[in-house]
Amino acid sequence: MVSKEVKAMSHFQVKIMPENRVIEVEHGATLLNAAAKAGIMIKSGCGGKGTCGACKVVVLSGDPIIDGTGNLTSEQLSKGYRLACKTLVQGDMSMEVPLESRLQEHQVLLGDARKGFLQESKHDLLEKFGRHPLAMKQRVTLSKPTLTENSSDWARLSIELRRALKTGDKPIHIPLSILKHLPESLRKANWDVSITLTDTEEGLTITNIEQGNDIPPYGLAVDIGTTTVVVYLVNLITGEIVDQQGTYNKQAKYGDDVINRIVYAVESEQNLIEIRDAVLETVNGLLDKILARQSLNHKDIASAMIAGNTTMTQLFLGVDPRYIRLEPYIPTMTTVPSYPAREIGLHMLPEALVHCYPSVASYVGGDIVAGTLVTDLANGEDIILFIDIGTNGEIVLGNQDWLVACACSAGPSFEGGGITFGMRAMPGAIERIMIDPETLDVSLKVVNNLPPVGICGSGLVDCIAKLLSAGIIDRAGNFQLGHPSGSQRLRATADDKEFVLAWAHQAGGEKDVVITENDVKNVIRAKGAIYAGIRSLLNMVAVEIEMISKIIIAGGFGNYLNIHDAVQIGLLPDLEQERFEFIGNASVKGARLALLSKKAWREAEELGRKMTYVELSVGATYMDEYMAALFLPHTDITLFPSVQ
Amino acid sequence: MVSKEVKAMSHFQVKIMPENRVIEVEHGATLLNAAAKAGIMIKSGCGGKGTCGACKVVVLSGDPIIDGTGNLTSEQLSKGYRLACKTLVQGDMSMEVPLESRLQEHQVLLGDARKGFLQESKHDLLEKFGRHPLAMKQRVTLSKPTLTENSSDWARLSIELRRALKTGDKPIHIPLSILKHLPESLRKANWDVSITLTDTEEGLTITNIEQGNDIPPYGLAVDIGTTTVVVYLVNLITGEIVDQQGTYNKQAKYGDDVINRIVYAVESEQNLIEIRDAVLETVNGLLDKILARQSLNHKDIASAMIAGNTTMTQLFLGVDPRYIRLEPYIPTMTTVPSYPAREIGLHMLPEALVHCYPSVASYVGGDIVAGTLVTDLANGEDIILFIDIGTNGEIVLGNQDWLVACACSAGPSFEGGGITFGMRAMPGAIERIMIDPETLDVSLKVVNNLPPVGICGSGLVDCIAKLLSAGIIDRAGNFQLGHPSGSQRLRATADDKEFVLAWAHQAGGEKDVVITENDVKNVIRAKGAIYAGIRSLLNMVAVEIEMISKIIIAGGFGNYLNIHDAVQIGLLPDLEQERFEFIGNASVKGARLALLSKKAWREAEELGRKMTYVELSVGATYMDEYMAALFLPHTDITLFPSVQ
Ligand code: FES
Ligand SMILES: [Mg+2]
Ligand SMILES: [Mg+2]
Repeated sequence: MVSKEVKAMSHFQVKIMPENRVIEVEHGATLLNAAAKAGIMIKSGCGGKGTCGACKVVVLSGDPIIDGTGNLTSEQLSKGYRLACKTLVQGDMSMEVPLESRLQEHQVLLGDARKGFLQESKHDLLEKFGRHPLAMKQRVTLSKPTLTENSSDWARLSIELRRALKTGDKPIHIPLSILKHLPESLRKANWDVSITLTDTEEGLTITNIEQGNDIPPYGLAVDIGTTTVVVYLVNLITGEIVDQQGTYNKQAKYGDDVINRIVYAVESEQNLIEIRDAVLETVNGLLDKILARQSLNHKDIASAMIAGNTTMTQLFLGVDPRYIRLEPYIPTMTTVPSYPAREIGLHMLPEALVHCYPSVASYVGGDIVAGTLVTDLANGEDIILFIDIGTNGEIVLGNQDWLVACACSAGPSFEGGGITFGMRAMPGAIERIMIDPETLDVSLKVVNNLPPVGICGSGLVDCIAKLLSAGIIDRAGNFQLGHPSGSQRLRATADDKEFVLAWAHQAGGEKDVVITENDVKNVIRAKGAIYAGIRSLLNMVAVEIEMISKIIIAGGFGNYLNIHDAVQIGLLPDLEQERFEFIGNASVKGARLALLSKKAWREAEELGRKMTYVELSVGATYMDEYMAALFLPHTDITLFPSVQ
Repeated sequence: MVSKEVKAMSHFQVKIMPENRVIEVEHGATLLNAAAKAGIMIKSGCGGKGTCGACKVVVLSGDPIIDGTGNLTSEQLSKGYRLACKTLVQGDMSMEVPLESRLQEHQVLLGDARKGFLQESKHDLLEKFGRHPLAMKQRVTLSKPTLTENSSDWARLSIELRRALKTGDKPIHIPLSILKHLPESLRKANWDVSITLTDTEEGLTITNIEQGNDIPPYGLAVDIGTTTVVVYLVNLITGEIVDQQGTYNKQAKYGDDVINRIVYAVESEQNLIEIRDAVLETVNGLLDKILARQSLNHKDIASAMIAGNTTMTQLFLGVDPRYIRLEPYIPTMTTVPSYPAREIGLHMLPEALVHCYPSVASYVGGDIVAGTLVTDLANGEDIILFIDIGTNGEIVLGNQDWLVACACSAGPSFEGGGITFGMRAMPGAIERIMIDPETLDVSLKVVNNLPPVGICGSGLVDCIAKLLSAGIIDRAGNFQLGHPSGSQRLRATADDKEFVLAWAHQAGGEKDVVITENDVKNVIRAKGAIYAGIRSLLNMVAVEIEMISKIIIAGGFGNYLNIHDAVQIGLLPDLEQERFEFIGNASVKGARLALLSKKAWREAEELGRKMTYVELSVGATYMDEYMAALFLPHTDITLFPSVQ
């Protein structure tokens, strides 16, 4: 053991924001190491050589040794940005680790959409529904038994709980695992106990008995996406989002989309368990991280609400997903029963219930129902269109009187799949592009201002709009090699045609970053699928585009989308920008809402039942609409009056 | 491998009745071995030497080799009785193994009391409560899903179930283990399925889904006694007791009474599991036997109802029993929640619920509540006294308006414990005794007319009554060595005085079978405890003995008791014989009733709450009554007008 004096001389405290965690490190430690010690992983693309700039952090206080600033701009330096790998601790200090410098978490949409665009407050419906969480905690002090006041331990506890909670006749259930140790639980606490309970329509269930304390109960709101998983830790008393964490779904190794996951899962009983465990591990991993960060324990988690698409929900529960992908596409369940965490495998109170959002059909899942709840779509006269664009584009249309929903296979283009240089909206992704129509010279906006390495979904939409307006492609997406500019960027290859977005030397790689004719056609098919879905729903209920008062867009891709571009290429209906709204990760927000409000949860279940699922593969309408939409912006140009 | 021909030549089939089991044995095997091979244990007191006669069976058909007939009488031989140990198989044959020849099971009171005394029909309250079992089975045929009729599997099933069962709004729950395989369950059965469900106040729970069939659902009614365990297999449609089986509680090795069991159980977590497993094994063993006999499967058992005293119930569930034996004697629970069989470990449908009768207090348990339900005690104006005499004597007094109950430590005398030649009512037990008051000559009635080896509870009561009337003991139980007969039977030993019931040569043993002064004092203490309990309850509610319209006696000992003797020694109140009634194993009967009728089950829970438990150790009344009762029949002889 080092003596206290020596220790005081060579160790310093580093506070890390926004976590507000304090870590003790040795003199000379890098901020990269300090963060790692706190469980916060910072990106280090160059391996800590100080060249990639991915590890930038903001020094808030203190005076560390600066061993290099790499490619940081003077503007960044003036704002306090430093390279975590080249900044050494020599005294107490504090730093902020910005989202974009964090490993994994950075590209997961934790919830909120971009600032200034979304009126977030409008969507916090908690006020409206009222706070009445699905789990609670009650402290009670029991009278000690005597020979004359000799009722059983369980009678003593349940009567006092009933009195304190004013539950009336509602049954209170005690699980066997807790009953077994009830005598000791009460006596060790000297009859002053804190009781955690799950509260459902059918009754109250005790999920924990501990020494009386005033720690609030916490709940988990979880969005299980096919690609990413997001967890909110919610204080069930205040409703506050105490912490949040997101990462990739570990199921990714079994395939990118739900179809591939199902194919893998149904090969054997073992595969199903394996793929279920992968998502469990993902959620538990996020949870463990949050608990460590908040100095909380698994037993403090009293409830969980999961929102995921139908396949994700079935895989999460280990329920045979076979028939989701076989005609007539039947999910095992739409309304999902709640089960104790111990049966599911989540790291929380074993007896606490895990709830899953109801689905509507095999391809309109709980994430969409959660999103629909958050949009408040079903509570006014105005007709609202809600779109979640991911690998599948799910669309909901309706108002207080009716709701229709459909899913269209947009394909993975907008998430970077099937596109030569496609990527997610990570650092290095081209997100905006400008093309000089005369010279075809290009200027790019790249995430984090790094050298461009690929193009993300919103970049693609922009790119295609610009290719079109520059005359590089025609309305069918065909490349026009005879462009008057004679630019070198527009060229034919052995088996395709392509346009160079960034030359290899600019890209810092060995290859030119290009977009090919095939890429363009893929995007046209993807946007066509979504637009045809929208049109099919509108046709079905005889609603004109103009009658849509609001279009709400959810999901990671939507979040970065430029509306003008999206209308230009015919992905979104041609309405004024004011009618569009971004809602971010609506799924996890809906999960939080239901976790905090029994009324919201009831309404969610009601929503699931009310929504009419439209199977697009039935009838010719969708196919006709799809064929008509395989044009920029559309075969019927009158649908896009604002597009020149 | 033996060739088929050789095998046919040397093996024969032995059918065993009433099990109707067929066993294949080799030429020359004894019937004792054949039965053992079938899992039917026959007693063999002499170890198969052909001398004790304990192994007698009835040969029904076939022509076995008779190698000896030992002490069988010519009358027995003419009825087909043979010694199982000395009868050898030489061809196909069949035999019956009578109850009295069976090891273990024979002395367990399966339910019915002696014929001719009990009006059994009066106690079948099923008519009154109405048949509405706690579990049911419903066959439904579902429509196949199509693209337009594409509701989920679970929606399809639950809607159809709801329609078939007319359950209205009652929630139907599906366990995760069943949901996981729902798609295959429905499709493999081609949408024609039989659904087993548990039906409780809180809702219906699916416990099995199988190919459509018409096998009825079965239930288990179980009496878990400290000493013996009895299982009824009940057809939940007809209410019929299809089969029954009883044996000793395997917990016996941890102590004879509940106190010793608790002491063992609380030594460690492991001990508690061990002692719980012992009773589980006992019940599962009986169940397995019954299922094999009935060619049924564990999945056919859809419900279980357990009645046991408070300690037995807690140990069965593995619930810490520590405080039952520590002042102020607090049980963990009186009302017992129901749990799925998989959590408890019973060999039945894993998701089917196991229900336990509620207790009243630490020493008035679910067996007494079950018995009280069967006596119909709480449903008329007449005051009824219900007594269950075992190691503990539990007493209930009341009518429709009030119910009081207490427990008194009678000690094990009536079950043979603490008595020099005490034994249970097994073959060889003295059950009746006559003593010539002049000569003190003795004639005995011994169970199964075997040579006497000991004396059972009812024999003891009779014996003491006869010792008293012959002037061998005085009213305090003191031996009168100066009896005018001068009989050799009455004698002093080094440290006690005794009376010889049977000489060694008659008893077929090496020792005279005697009753000692100490034995007599033990019985007086036991009967005093019970009578004092009765008097204490009567005093408490200011009821005179004469006001008791009926005394109902339950339990194995009660079943063989001679009322006249019992009144003579002051064990039972001095009322005319017509007011006494024997009810047999009321506990298992009550279990069956609640299994078959939700109304009965509700009334049982109501009974448990209504009963006022009187703690005899509080206040002086009981002690005074006890001291006064340590006399034959009592210090206050006016309480026993019929006793000379
Ligand atoms: S790790 Fe690359 S600059 Fe710091
Ligand atoms: Mg999503
Ligand atoms: Mg009993």
